[in-house]
Amino acid sequence: MRNLTLLTDFYELTMMYGYYRQGKTEEVATFDLFFRPFDESNFCIAAGLEQAVEYLENLHFDSEDIEYLRSTKAFDEGFLATLKDFRFTGSVRAVPEGTVVFPYEPLMIVTAPISQAQLIEAAVLNIINHQTLIATKARRVCHAAAPASVLEFGLRRAQGPDAAIYGARAAVIGGCSSTSNVLCAQMFGLPPKGTHAHSWVMSFPTELDAFKAYADTYPDNCLLLVDTYDTLGSGVPNAIKTFDYLKGKGYKPVGIRLDSGDLAYLSKQARKMMDAAGHSDCKIFASSDIDEYVLQSLKAQGAAIDIYGVGTKLITSNNTPSLGGVYKLSNLRVNGVDSPKMKISDNPVKVTNPGVKTVFRLFDKTTNKAIADVIALKGEVIDETKPLTVTHPVDRWKTKQVTDFYARELYVDAMIDGKRVLPHKDVYDLQRDCRESLDGFWEEYKRLSNPHSYKVDLSDKLYALKERLISEERKTVAK
Amino acid sequence: MRNLTLLTDFYELTMMYGYYRQGKTEEVATFDLFFRPFDESNFCIAAGLEQAVEYLENLHFDSEDIEYLRSTKAFDEGFLATLKDFRFTGSVRAVPEGTVVFPYEPLMIVTAPISQAQLIEAAVLNIINHQTLIATKARRVCHAAAPASVLEFGLRRAQGPDAAIYGARAAVIGGCSSTSNVLCAQMFGLPPKGTHAHSWVMSFPTELDAFKAYADTYPDNCLLLVDTYDTLGSGVPNAIKTFDYLKGKGYKPVGIRLDSGDLAYLSKQARKMMDAAGHSDCKIFASSDIDEYVLQSLKAQGAAIDIYGVGTKLITSNNTPSLGGVYKLSNLRVNGVDSPKMKISDNPVKVTNPGVKTVFRLFDKTTNKAIADVIALKGEVIDETKPLTVTHPVDRWKTKQVTDFYARELYVDAMIDGKRVLPHKDVYDLQRDCRESLDGFWEEYKRLSNPHSYKVDLSDKLYALKERLISEERKTVAK
Repeated sequence: MRNLTLLTDFYELTMMYGYYRQGKTEEVATFDLFFRPFDESNFCIAAGLEQAVEYLENLHFDSEDIEYLRSTKAFDEGFLATLKDFRFTGSVRAVPEGTVVFPYEPLMIVTAPISQAQLIEAAVLNIINHQTLIATKARRVCHAAAPASVLEFGLRRAQGPDAAIYGARAAVIGGCSSTSNVLCAQMFGLPPKGTHAHSWVMSFPTELDAFKAYADTYPDNCLLLVDTYDTLGSGVPNAIKTFDYLKGKGYKPVGIRLDSGDLAYLSKQARKMMDAAGHSDCKIFASSDIDEYVLQSLKAQGAAIDIYGVGTKLITSNNTPSLGGVYKLSNLRVNGVDSPKMKISDNPVKVTNPGVKTVFRLFDKTTNKAIADVIALKGEVIDETKPLTVTHPVDRWKTKQVTDFYARELYVDAMIDGKRVLPHKDVYDLQRDCRESLDGFWEEYKRLSNPHSYKVDLSDKLYALKERLISEERKTVAK
Repeated sequence: MRNLTLLTDFYELTMMYGYYRQGKTEEVATFDLFFRPFDESNFCIAAGLEQAVEYLENLHFDSEDIEYLRSTKAFDEGFLATLKDFRFTGSVRAVPEGTVVFPYEPLMIVTAPISQAQLIEAAVLNIINHQTLIATKARRVCHAAAPASVLEFGLRRAQGPDAAIYGARAAVIGGCSSTSNVLCAQMFGLPPKGTHAHSWVMSFPTELDAFKAYADTYPDNCLLLVDTYDTLGSGVPNAIKTFDYLKGKGYKPVGIRLDSGDLAYLSKQARKMMDAAGHSDCKIFASSDIDEYVLQSLKAQGAAIDIYGVGTKLITSNNTPSLGGVYKLSNLRVNGVDSPKMKISDNPVKVTNPGVKTVFRLFDKTTNKAIADVIALKGEVIDETKPLTVTHPVDRWKTKQVTDFYARELYVDAMIDGKRVLPHKDVYDLQRDCRESLDGFWEEYKRLSNPHSYKVDLSDKLYALKERLISEERKTVAK
């Protein structure tokens, strides 16, 4: 396993050194990892927890790491000596991968000695921001493509190897059926997908020669790319000849792939041509700059496409290529005494929620659909037997009375005292968890444009705490 | 070193198997890696070659890789046996990192047995697309910031660990002075940058306590983040008190960092406050959602900022998060006979240039500024003693007579017969190469909005070859 311990911002290390010099290393901090309202989607699909936990389990400074830090001349020998046995000994509660999660709801709550909790900030943000971003995009793309399925094809346009590998993993959690990325497929037990490229066709004297050669190589799994020269003029007719040839030998051809041009028009024409030639069971695959908006348009035009390959725009989350998750101090325990912490800002969107928290999702007893979420202080209990008033977290005059509901906490323990307790899960199991989490929401929340706004309330206790801290802080600043 | 051999699309492997089954493995293919016109910028800064060459040097199938491929049931034993000793034995010519490069100019030209050249497509595209994208964005950001310098701060928002590490490397090639990413700094010999976060301030009873504690920890390098509570109301005044304290002890404080709010207004006010308090030598750092457009606006407003930290929008190339480079077959040598190859498409932008090529950059003898580039067939010579007519590659009626020029080929040998010949270069040397390449262009080509269009011609020989292949192909398709 790669040692990513130095995958951190330098200021995490200078702060660690400062905490050490100030005798603060025994203070226990709680940090919340959450995102603020996100342009691309009203909710996200949590992903990346598995890799974040692997990173935490493996956290240690090699002797070369310590030597390197010595070379920066920013730390004394006493501090460098403490790094030798440095391990993550904290606890992590987290929203499981595949879960629908809303702005301000912590995806991950880390409680650990302040130096440890500080060091890990940049890497856990990197991992969770990235995979959550891509799982969220994949959910949108798959939603728009349904009932057609979506393959992840983005390796060559991803932002480096990890973006390709872990992006493809997140894409499958969010709903993609598999990936073309062989290394990702190997690492996560997915079936790798793909057939041939234009270069295959160009390396033979004619397109038909290339198709026949491919058919001979994979008679059982013959999918032909038909747009190297002229899709309807040569590609589809040559594919039909090849399928006739395969059928004559007793094989069942798979279909064709369109990779350029007007996919709506070409797919409908190709469908007619293949149907007329007796190949109605052959499928049409399509790729070429596809995203959820192109998919909606193709559907509206009645495109005859069975399976989509989606690359660049999914693997980079093209319209919004970062999630913007943050990691904020919410509590500090000094000598056993808890002090809830919050960041105050002139910008209301940047004010954080103080204290060690949890989130309840309230479901209607009859429909099993989600009604609202409540961010509360850890240890609070929601009485399911009484009506509950849910209040809008900003516009406090907006309230809703909820009855006949049950409440579920969103969190699982991922690590306790430095030990992993998160169960290992197969990626397709996480995909199923994602589907189940999505099934808990009405369609109105899940549509791609102007979805209905979902209510995320603060509990009365949390709201009161926040108000108290703001007024205390104002007094301090005024002094 | 990580084995990235399986970081490939599955179709590269099925094609390799097809080439093997068809007895084509001795055929020698040449592929060009190039990008098409790119929304974000009229030119790019080449980057990633070092990592692409490392990948090629290290290419091999481990026994677990072969076992995994066996498990897919897509290959026979004869083919799997050939993978055991598989190595990259081809040659690579490439545009050196840090060079200004235009659409359609190959960044990399790979000549190798077809199976090898095919296998590497996805990984080299992934590596070169990513780093070239980020180096290009960094060039734009640094251009807008100058004379202020720019630090790369994007780790937490990058698309995974590699995007952070290699993105920061590319950002430095493109002009950033350094990075906050410690692992990247360690790997590439850069000085890691950063001081403290809001959580440092929040972990102390008061902001002033936090500042004094930081000053005691780093009296020589005291840069204070002033926006945790109220930038002008408490942050700057507390910073000034701390700087007074440091000066009293004989130290020279570094300055303050602004991380939110109206950076133009706050920086000017903070500048005045620090100047009035006798801290004119203290610098103002700023970060917070900065890109080249924000920088232009800040400059226009006379913001008093000395150094920028640029994160999310640089490390993800926010407006255009993929370069869209492609890798296309340009020549096939079978039994010693070369056949130039090209992809024909209904979409003119997707028609490729055939043959084994080179690119000349023509410079004016007096000014040493670039006049035009000429994409030519390899082996062509440009006679510098005679006037040269440069023709627009698409609009053939647009021509320009060039005299008193000299021509430089853009390429270096990176690998010959599977052996690396590319010299190892320090990242700051590549940054200097980049600056020199940029210095070869008039300002009109480098401005961020509506730059002057730079001429990239095809040589007469290449143009004639392309025309001939198109007409031959049309006849074949017509049949």
